[in-house]
Amino acid sequence: MTKPIVTPWEVKGEIDYSKIIKEFGTQPIDDQLLKRIKKHTKELHPYLKRKIFFSHRDMDKVLDAYEKKKKFYLYTGRAPSGPVHIGHLIPWLMTKWLQDKFKVNLLFQIPDEEKFLFKENLTLEESQKWAYENILDIIAIGFDPKKTKIFLDTEYSGTMYKYACKVGKKITFSTAKATFGFTNSTNLGALFYTCMQSVPAFLPSIYEKKPTMCLIPHAIDQDPHFRVTRDVAKALNYPKPAALHCRFLPGLQGLDNQGKMSSSVQSSAIYTTDTPEEVKKKVMKYAFSGGRATIEEHRNFGGNPEVDISYQWLTFFEEDDKKLEKIYKDYKSGKLLSGELKQILVDKLNKFLAVHQKEREKAKNKVKMFMVRD
Amino acid sequence: MTKPIVTPWEVKGEIDYSKIIKEFGTQPIDDQLLKRIKKHTKELHPYLKRKIFFSHRDMDKVLDAYEKKKKFYLYTGRAPSGPVHIGHLIPWLMTKWLQDKFKVNLLFQIPDEEKFLFKENLTLEESQKWAYENILDIIAIGFDPKKTKIFLDTEYSGTMYKYACKVGKKITFSTAKATFGFTNSTNLGALFYTCMQSVPAFLPSIYEKKPTMCLIPHAIDQDPHFRVTRDVAKALNYPKPAALHCRFLPGLQGLDNQGKMSSSVQSSAIYTTDTPEEVKKKVMKYAFSGGRATIEEHRNFGGNPEVDISYQWLTFFEEDDKKLEKIYKDYKSGKLLSGELKQILVDKLNKFLAVHQKEREKAKNKVKMFMVRD
Repeated sequence: MTKPIVTPWEVKGEIDYSKIIKEFGTQPIDDQLLKRIKKHTKELHPYLKRKIFFSHRDMDKVLDAYEKKKKFYLYTGRAPSGPVHIGHLIPWLMTKWLQDKFKVNLLFQIPDEEKFLFKENLTLEESQKWAYENILDIIAIGFDPKKTKIFLDTEYSGTMYKYACKVGKKITFSTAKATFGFTNSTNLGALFYTCMQSVPAFLPSIYEKKPTMCLIPHAIDQDPHFRVTRDVAKALNYPKPAALHCRFLPGLQGLDNQGKMSSSVQSSAIYTTDTPEEVKKKVMKYAFSGGRATIEEHRNFGGNPEVDISYQWLTFFEEDDKKLEKIYKDYKSGKLLSGELKQILVDKLNKFLAVHQKEREKAKNKVKMFMVRD
Repeated sequence: MTKPIVTPWEVKGEIDYSKIIKEFGTQPIDDQLLKRIKKHTKELHPYLKRKIFFSHRDMDKVLDAYEKKKKFYLYTGRAPSGPVHIGHLIPWLMTKWLQDKFKVNLLFQIPDEEKFLFKENLTLEESQKWAYENILDIIAIGFDPKKTKIFLDTEYSGTMYKYACKVGKKITFSTAKATFGFTNSTNLGALFYTCMQSVPAFLPSIYEKKPTMCLIPHAIDQDPHFRVTRDVAKALNYPKPAALHCRFLPGLQGLDNQGKMSSSVQSSAIYTTDTPEEVKKKVMKYAFSGGRATIEEHRNFGGNPEVDISYQWLTFFEEDDKKLEKIYKDYKSGKLLSGELKQILVDKLNKFLAVHQKEREKAKNKVKMFMVRD
């Protein structure tokens, strides 16, 4: 097994999430914090109960502010370079839940320049085309149009660039090199990009002329950006943004092959626009199984849900704890066969995607309600 | 004498302009080129005749295009961090002359973020305040409001940022390091800045959807930026911008103390808003003299116009060749005393500034005519 890599540009290998907490210097989401969240939300989202969101920075301070009737807002994003797969939805679903429970505003950044700057062969125009495709998936999640602003960096740079310069003045090449692993061959646009990702973490503090807490739900690989943002926030006298970090939805082919689902590996991903037949075919063909070599062995010794991708995915998509527990037990005991488990997942995903695809279709008429530009 | 330094951030020492041509790889403006320009302009600006504009890149290609009835346009700029001094006006006066003679458009960039990013203690707000002060001096030059667009980078970044990203993707940190002498301590905003300076060299080619030649009159210290711009232009399939390079107006205290007038050294600069009394006082007190120690010696052996700042400045401000020649001869022969020469300069400058200040006052009502923003 190769050493796992977790950076904004690459996630590879079998990831030890408790190690990441130590290495990145974040805080685990513990039962005490969950209890405190539940006090306000009445119930807990399965992603919190199941520690799919496993780590945070300053979530306690967000609650401090909230309990003192001070406003906070949400910020998350999507760098477009291809279709949205179901792994991308995890932080968005959490963000939607937080918006509903706390009735807060959301800034949704689409950094359409990011992947263009980091991928040799991607044009800005391709990235922008994907941006508008991806926005349909974002809107389909059900964010409150009155409380949500979605923007493309290249359409909002009249607003952001000057603040990005203020951020940029506070970050040296050395820091960027140490944080992101940049080299002398990194291009100037890629170097500057992190400044643009920082800006939405301050914008409401700037516009409302008072410190406004920002909470960023995101996958853990983006933490280096916000680590820098937090240092800069201090230097610029804005509140440090807080964050909630989620694990990656593993790729279809298993936990040890690759750390997260990848848009560019067809056989690893279920896209939000896949048909029920495609979903079934991919799961049946590619989903790494924790089952035994023969049915007989499986019945006798049971399967291993810890490595079984179908089971692992159900922890992200089956909201009912009891159902999930039964599946776990039945699979482990050998009562549930791998093919049967796969079929449960297929049904679950297709049910989820049927709703998503309907909303995605409706979203085509809602784009203007959500978008802001200079 | 220390080795002279000529970079966009620093100009120091006694500058050998023919050496610069070799080092930077530009072309001297020779009599053949002047003859070709004169064919179209009928007369030559004193800055051309006197080789104050001494070097160029691809001016012959601009004339090729012009002679084939193809459009070209002018681009120049001003990075604000303080008041405008008379040295800043040299490229602008040339630009105005070129606009009049060739009847061409002009993009005038005010990179209000540049000095903010490169100067530790300058705020963006201070730089922006100076931008609007400096714009009055630019308008006072007399550019054609129908053919001139002035913009601040922070007010035009909605237009420029995406193209700056396209430029940025083509420049590695290594290249920027080698070109500008950046180090690991350089900040990310400063690193990206050159991309924003490149964009106006392509904008009309983008908007008019056909290759449009750009001619940039500027002081030679900015050449590193445009050297990079020219490489990038090729990579992005835009015409390489051409350039006309001028010498620096030396500071009052002489040629060997500092290469160019500095806004931050009070005793080296005449500001465009100086009163006639201030001009007189500064010239009389600080202008480095090529005269002899005593009047008697001066009468006998004559002065040295080559090092005399008053004479040198008159080569920039006395348009009449015959008058200038007489001053040269009279000073060299000892007929003209240093005090008298200084008085000639004082009168010339105050006459020039009286007109400039009147136009500068009128400019306050013209700002909207010239400015563009996103």
